[in-house]
Amino acid sequence: MGITSGGAGNQTTIGKADDQTTAGGAGNQTAAGGARNQTEALRELLDGRWGSLRRSSLDLLGDLEPPPDLGREEYRAWVLEQMRALAEGGHPLIGFPAEYGGRDDVGGSVVAFEVLGFGDLSLMVKAGVQWGLFGGAVQALGTTTHHDRYLRAIMSLELPGCFAMTETGHGSDVQNLRTTATYDPSTEEFVVHTPDASARKDYIGNAARDGRMAVVFAQLVAGGAGHGVHAVLVPIRDEQGAPMPGVRIEDCGPKAGLNGVDNGRLSFDHVRVPRANLLNRYGDVAPDGTYSSPVEGEGRRFFTMLGTLVRGRISVAGGAGSATKRALALAIRYGDTRRQFTRPDTGDEVVVLDYLAHQRRLLPALATSYALHFAQQELVSALHDVADDRQQRQLESRAAGLKAVATWHATRTIQTCREACGGAGYLSENLIAGLKADTDVFTTFEGDNTVLLQLVAKGLLTSYRDHVGDLDPWGMVRFVADQAVGVVIERTAARAIIDRLVSGSSDALLDRGWQVRQFEDREKHVLEGLARRLRRASRDNAFDVFNAAQDHVLHAARVHVDRVVLEAFVAAVDRCDDPETTALLNQVCDLYALSAIEADRAWFLEHGRLSPQRSKAVSQAVNELCGRLRPHARTLVDAFGIPETWLTAPIVT
Amino acid sequence: MGITSGGAGNQTTIGKADDQTTAGGAGNQTAAGGARNQTEALRELLDGRWGSLRRSSLDLLGDLEPPPDLGREEYRAWVLEQMRALAEGGHPLIGFPAEYGGRDDVGGSVVAFEVLGFGDLSLMVKAGVQWGLFGGAVQALGTTTHHDRYLRAIMSLELPGCFAMTETGHGSDVQNLRTTATYDPSTEEFVVHTPDASARKDYIGNAARDGRMAVVFAQLVAGGAGHGVHAVLVPIRDEQGAPMPGVRIEDCGPKAGLNGVDNGRLSFDHVRVPRANLLNRYGDVAPDGTYSSPVEGEGRRFFTMLGTLVRGRISVAGGAGSATKRALALAIRYGDTRRQFTRPDTGDEVVVLDYLAHQRRLLPALATSYALHFAQQELVSALHDVADDRQQRQLESRAAGLKAVATWHATRTIQTCREACGGAGYLSENLIAGLKADTDVFTTFEGDNTVLLQLVAKGLLTSYRDHVGDLDPWGMVRFVADQAVGVVIERTAARAIIDRLVSGSSDALLDRGWQVRQFEDREKHVLEGLARRLRRASRDNAFDVFNAAQDHVLHAARVHVDRVVLEAFVAAVDRCDDPETTALLNQVCDLYALSAIEADRAWFLEHGRLSPQRSKAVSQAVNELCGRLRPHARTLVDAFGIPETWLTAPIVT
Repeated sequence: MGITSGGAGNQTTIGKADDQTTAGGAGNQTAAGGARNQTEALRELLDGRWGSLRRSSLDLLGDLEPPPDLGREEYRAWVLEQMRALAEGGHPLIGFPAEYGGRDDVGGSVVAFEVLGFGDLSLMVKAGVQWGLFGGAVQALGTTTHHDRYLRAIMSLELPGCFAMTETGHGSDVQNLRTTATYDPSTEEFVVHTPDASARKDYIGNAARDGRMAVVFAQLVAGGAGHGVHAVLVPIRDEQGAPMPGVRIEDCGPKAGLNGVDNGRLSFDHVRVPRANLLNRYGDVAPDGTYSSPVEGEGRRFFTMLGTLVRGRISVAGGAGSATKRALALAIRYGDTRRQFTRPDTGDEVVVLDYLAHQRRLLPALATSYALHFAQQELVSALHDVADDRQQRQLESRAAGLKAVATWHATRTIQTCREACGGAGYLSENLIAGLKADTDVFTTFEGDNTVLLQLVAKGLLTSYRDHVGDLDPWGMVRFVADQAVGVVIERTAARAIIDRLVSGSSDALLDRGWQVRQFEDREKHVLEGLARRLRRASRDNAFDVFNAAQDHVLHAARVHVDRVVLEAFVAAVDRCDDPETTALLNQVCDLYALSAIEADRAWFLEHGRLSPQRSKAVSQAVNELCGRLRPHARTLVDAFGIPETWLTAPIVT
Repeated sequence: MGITSGGAGNQTTIGKADDQTTAGGAGNQTAAGGARNQTEALRELLDGRWGSLRRSSLDLLGDLEPPPDLGREEYRAWVLEQMRALAEGGHPLIGFPAEYGGRDDVGGSVVAFEVLGFGDLSLMVKAGVQWGLFGGAVQALGTTTHHDRYLRAIMSLELPGCFAMTETGHGSDVQNLRTTATYDPSTEEFVVHTPDASARKDYIGNAARDGRMAVVFAQLVAGGAGHGVHAVLVPIRDEQGAPMPGVRIEDCGPKAGLNGVDNGRLSFDHVRVPRANLLNRYGDVAPDGTYSSPVEGEGRRFFTMLGTLVRGRISVAGGAGSATKRALALAIRYGDTRRQFTRPDTGDEVVVLDYLAHQRRLLPALATSYALHFAQQELVSALHDVADDRQQRQLESRAAGLKAVATWHATRTIQTCREACGGAGYLSENLIAGLKADTDVFTTFEGDNTVLLQLVAKGLLTSYRDHVGDLDPWGMVRFVADQAVGVVIERTAARAIIDRLVSGSSDALLDRGWQVRQFEDREKHVLEGLARRLRRASRDNAFDVFNAAQDHVLHAARVHVDRVVLEAFVAAVDRCDDPETTALLNQVCDLYALSAIEADRAWFLEHGRLSPQRSKAVSQAVNELCGRLRPHARTLVDAFGIPETWLTAPIVT
């Protein structure tokens, strides 16, 4: 089963599908002119729907300078200065409402954030805290009063703020956090209080140094009853930067990375704020303490609120993607010039990227970065265009899944890039060390990846009947146990193209239809098996049944994400109108698909989907694809369009 | 094929084998007294042959304090101070000759270094540079004159020094490094010279701040001819700490970790040193420039010299093991108390280590740490007792293999521990962040892991006919092509026990004999296949044949190391004389063996060694073993005996 026997060229002859406008329409405008540079052709496809915004964001980033070697406090000060430069450059305006001077471009705001991921990651994260989390919460959970009062000051950085959700004792399980906001009708105030050390707000960005106000998530108590978690605006520092009375602020101190972000801890000792400080879009308290909400049920209300914050998770996936691309660009540029060991026949020293082992480390990871890029594009478009509740829940699920997969890919790939650069990769001057340290926390912040994948599985098993967070992990057991629905694989992108690919497919390894069938078939089988296992549960043994199946749950979520990512890649290839570029992209897509199958080939073997011989042929095909793509490696990373300012290091000069 | 059907208890009834004295005899002395504490019983087994030295080294380490949060220069100064404390405590004496006040205990010196791995890793590495690499090179490559002149000053830290081998342009391929030492008979001096920037010595520990002298590896030129790489002592700083004339010293600056070590770059501009500065044990130059050597052949000579430095590689494996244990101890203690999400039946919050997914992340890694610990013990004993050339070459090969596997295990496991501690794991105060940053370079220093595994494969294919480094990677192709030898699996530990286990084995997954057979059979098959592939090569296509088989080469080396590690574990279990502890260790050994098989189960499926059903049963058995070992997790990490001073962090108090 050789690599050349398949129908690799399939996609090049397939016409535009009717759903192609959901992402990346920009690539079409530049279709003319056959002899254009391939790097530029790839780059335009990667730019996608928000192409011109991406280019102007890249220009803004390219004008900033990388930080010098600074101590922690100086680094924090440097980041704040850069924040001002971003504010002056208009970066924060993109996602905010036009009536406050913004641009009302939700998708664009995620793309602009993603671009920051090519630069200093402390700056990216601090920008995300200020404008994405803090500003986003005021915008999404607040109402006109709050918008009128705060949005302009948030955009201009006049009001630096925090998003105070996580507590020391409750990270993943935010529904059970323990800070309280108790309404006192006698003064028409909320009393915000930290009952004990485990309820203090922890790891809060912007808290240790710069924040003046915090969106504090707390159990709302009004009229003598609890109403679940709500968000309240609490001033934490005065104009001089001193903590407000009753507010205790601690510094989280040095971290593995992101040391330009001032993470801190907040505790509240019966701090009083006016009634109007409740962000009251999803729940309000009347002057007399009467509670009202447009959303029925405490859990549903909380996860409706959380759902409006899905942009943060999508942004992390994008930022992680950018950092990964930067590490790959550095490692591939270095591997393309670094030589080691003399070749016996020619006497020349061998360029290390000519070694199969080196290609194996870097090129499947590069192909996966392409795949995740296109999946991210689809996701950003879905966020921008979301129109109904079911789409919203599907979006939340896909955001959770892609965030988990993209951030693990980042951690693994950046580690590989570090090792691929040897001792040089360990020096800060060569940048990969910093990327590794800064991105490490992405796997656990904005949702721990393991928890997120469980939410993905739940969404699949319940056909998105509820918000992804709306049950504890084993809640899905009870939910599934009550149902008899079959598993339906719903295509998320390029539906018409994929229908055609699958129906006309052969069994060649390089036939895209065959690859898609493997991904779909695996997902269906894994999910059906999981549903059968979980249906055995009763209310009494829900935890044990869930727990025994937990690796099955995680596998189900992963293979689902794999399939969604492959579909996005197929759709992207279809949008490409330059034949040579399409041919190259098809090989990258083959490498993504086959290396993903190879990584999980034990499953395909265990379930009779691959014969032993064919499984070995998959590994052989991955080797051959690595060899074929090796001459294009530099082009493929150049097409990311990373500003040269951010790729300047001794190893690549 | 359930987990309970096997003969798990097999080993407990098997008597002592006759090779058990090669490692861990110490455990026997404490055999009496049935009711002794299980942690202590495990600990004594882990202590092994150098038990009392290990305990006294732990005491010395326990008396040191962890470093406060320091800037780079302050941290370097702190580390130097701690070095003095180690020197005063007698740490450096262990490995040096008795005639200079040392203890002549080679194995003991590695164990003492390994213990330092529980503490500050900059201190461990700086100690390794000073006493292991610099002092070790003077001892192993020099002769009496050098010993008389320098060893006492090296031990006392009066003469801080460097090991200047790696160059910017040549890391793995040290045989082709380009610094020259040209003999000038008119003055009876060597002229040490750096021809260009790529030949400068790079990443050299102790160079940027403290080193006074360097062992410089250079191409020796004498009598008008080149004689290959030799080591020359070059003073680099005067008594006042200023660089010597002609010596240029640069600072490598900030690194991902190990910032208490002053890595630097050294360049030499025609620096003259006396003829006596040549470390002349393996090659000497007479006053008139006549070269002589007891070792025939330039390559063989160089690798004989390198071979004497094998202790460094073994030390890194040990140090990596200690850092991994410390991370596991922190993550498991935290996982044993941290609670998240409420259990539906009881209403209690669940301890996170009760989740299967959490067990899956930490417990197979813990079992592997046990396995690698016992393999390290065997290796240290082999180093201590090495008696002939073939044993030396086998030792070099095993050192290369275990270094690669142990350091990759460290990188992966410490990453997992970080994630298992969530956001708390990202804060420096909780220690895992530092462990991750400091250990990262272990995968590429003292030999890049990918290159080392290739050397292991070469050793296997050539039955250790030459030193492991003695050929470039594809040299093995020509070597193997010339031969017709079959592959013989040579048991490295516990030979008699394993003979018995294998001959009496059933097919149950928990039958140790079955497990050993799988490891042996896989190694034999992979190696034989590799030999067949490589034999196809001719001189002209050696590079291409080697390169196409490179992933096969790496797999062969890995499965060999896996087998050696399992044998060491079997031997260790056999040394245990407490029935309860033996039963526990047998479960840990099962988890190591089965999780290793699970990780490579695609191979077993592809080669008809596991049926699909049995392969799934392996995964199920790993799940069940995780559940069974979970109650013992704390005991298993406590038995590492890590001083509490080095386990003090907010998350575990």
